[in-house]
Amino acid sequence: MSDQPPAAPVNRRLVLAQRPAAMVDQSTVRLEEVPVPEPIPGQALVRVRYLSIDPTIRTWMNDAVGYLPPIAIGGVIRCAGIGEIVASHTERFAVGELVFGMTGWQDYTVAGQGDGVADMQILPPGIDPPIALNVFGITGMTAYFGLIDVGRVAAGDTVVVSGAAGATGSVVGQIARIKGAATVVGIAGSPEKCAWLVDELGFDAAVNYRTDDVKARLRQLCPGGIDLYFDNVGGEILDLCLGQLAMRGRVVLCGAISTYNTPGRASGPANYRNLITKRGRMEGFIILDYTSRFPEAQLAMASWVGEGKVQHKEHIVDGLANAPDALNLLFTGGNTGKVVVRL
Amino acid sequence: MSDQPPAAPVNRRLVLAQRPAAMVDQSTVRLEEVPVPEPIPGQALVRVRYLSIDPTIRTWMNDAVGYLPPIAIGGVIRCAGIGEIVASHTERFAVGELVFGMTGWQDYTVAGQGDGVADMQILPPGIDPPIALNVFGITGMTAYFGLIDVGRVAAGDTVVVSGAAGATGSVVGQIARIKGAATVVGIAGSPEKCAWLVDELGFDAAVNYRTDDVKARLRQLCPGGIDLYFDNVGGEILDLCLGQLAMRGRVVLCGAISTYNTPGRASGPANYRNLITKRGRMEGFIILDYTSRFPEAQLAMASWVGEGKVQHKEHIVDGLANAPDALNLLFTGGNTGKVVVRL
Repeated sequence: MSDQPPAAPVNRRLVLAQRPAAMVDQSTVRLEEVPVPEPIPGQALVRVRYLSIDPTIRTWMNDAVGYLPPIAIGGVIRCAGIGEIVASHTERFAVGELVFGMTGWQDYTVAGQGDGVADMQILPPGIDPPIALNVFGITGMTAYFGLIDVGRVAAGDTVVVSGAAGATGSVVGQIARIKGAATVVGIAGSPEKCAWLVDELGFDAAVNYRTDDVKARLRQLCPGGIDLYFDNVGGEILDLCLGQLAMRGRVVLCGAISTYNTPGRASGPANYRNLITKRGRMEGFIILDYTSRFPEAQLAMASWVGEGKVQHKEHIVDGLANAPDALNLLFTGGNTGKVVVRL
Repeated sequence: MSDQPPAAPVNRRLVLAQRPAAMVDQSTVRLEEVPVPEPIPGQALVRVRYLSIDPTIRTWMNDAVGYLPPIAIGGVIRCAGIGEIVASHTERFAVGELVFGMTGWQDYTVAGQGDGVADMQILPPGIDPPIALNVFGITGMTAYFGLIDVGRVAAGDTVVVSGAAGATGSVVGQIARIKGAATVVGIAGSPEKCAWLVDELGFDAAVNYRTDDVKARLRQLCPGGIDLYFDNVGGEILDLCLGQLAMRGRVVLCGAISTYNTPGRASGPANYRNLITKRGRMEGFIILDYTSRFPEAQLAMASWVGEGKVQHKEHIVDGLANAPDALNLLFTGGNTGKVVVRL
């Protein structure tokens, strides 16, 4: 697959060739070249510039009903992204404007389809698109509403977050600190990531789940138990954190990346019974439910980023053809911060 | 062990001889005969009359920190019960009054120890003690606060309860109906229990977990999913119900009787991930946190019992020596309704 934009007006797109049994590989997607879509009156043509690479994309590839329908075989891989208006038949979008929305893994899409999920939002000028996809995008919104609304983070809390060097996790820890958490512990997968969390983002401590005894380290770092565990990974780490919950502890279920590539049935957290003893609460959420409140969170994030209280990192991968590899980074732990594909 | 009260003033008591690995058996407890306790000024002597047999007693026998410390080896088996004041050195208790509190598995105890857990409450006159231990006691309170406060039952809900023919479960289903649940489904372990739930208690349907395909039956009975699952049993049934949760469904974790006698580590509910997709909440509680609000719930229960909206059944077992067998009934499913030991 050439990664140069074609000379002819062609839309290159990656479609789902077959459902992956485990990690996404070469057989999962197929590159197609199709005509560039033609916007009708009320629509605008979008040249996709950046793709937001999120773990949830992997779940949409399964043949299972989730919070959105599965991607159809032969369908473009569903993905959020940012594009530029390159032709417009509507007053809503002007040529040159940047828009955010569900672009998919392709060069071109159409804005103004009038479909709630698919329709595009104009990006305020002056924001670097990869940052917009990170702290001001789904990632930052997920951290904000998950921690504050679902987790009800409170001053004095001992907060633990897994996937802590990822896009969402790294922001969760920093918001917890802003909200007065007494102790913020991140769980990540390399010494470099752990150092980044503590030295640059202000986490109190970081646990390397690949080399540390996570159970023992958490017991040491959180002697009074965990008031709030923000779970991005599921699996054994979720179970360990449930086992160390403090009285009235809360578990925010954001994702379960340790299980997304596992064929068959994953195991469940046996320590869920601690929710009874500790009067605990475990609650899931989907960020799509909060879209009407994004402005409130984006304002807060902008202020925190401006004051240097929230730092962020973007991990840029170039080329549409590399989108599958970029997605796999989330599961191998090859990224630090937000993974973005630049077309 | 003779079950006749002794002629001499002796306190017969059952103490923990060794921690059970699975079901309680003859080696678990030991009968001791010790002098009747002598109340000091400020105290009263209580002749224990009824024991409330609850699944949680089994958890206190394990060497594990729970919401209360484990029963010590050689310690009297901890148990709620009702007794009669037979001697008093305090104005708080008059001879002949019935009192409720943590009596333990023994003939005599002392009221007025000034210890929050151990101290006795006077039972209002005119209430049959087994009923007081059932709908007006821990059992009824657990159903009331678990369903209303933790589960936030709402009109139109589809409610499923496991252990439905047990003391708590049978009341849960009836309160759900009173609160306007659209569908109330009970899960129980015999045709007789299922018939009792539907024919006498007004459940819409009952599923026999020993003979029915629970997953298929629930899918049929709850086509829109389960809004509220009240879990008394844990294990596979919890997992099945998580898998059929409706949008914003709630799981109230009351107990896990399917696991209390399981040596070693139980498995966890793999379908917990549905809490993310469905924006669900799973929350545990301990009824001891609600004692200050018992009067509110007891008033409601008294009214509902009076109007015939809440029916109840007590399963009476005679004799202190039979307390271990009475406890086992909860795990073998040998009871319908509240198990009470009469001394």
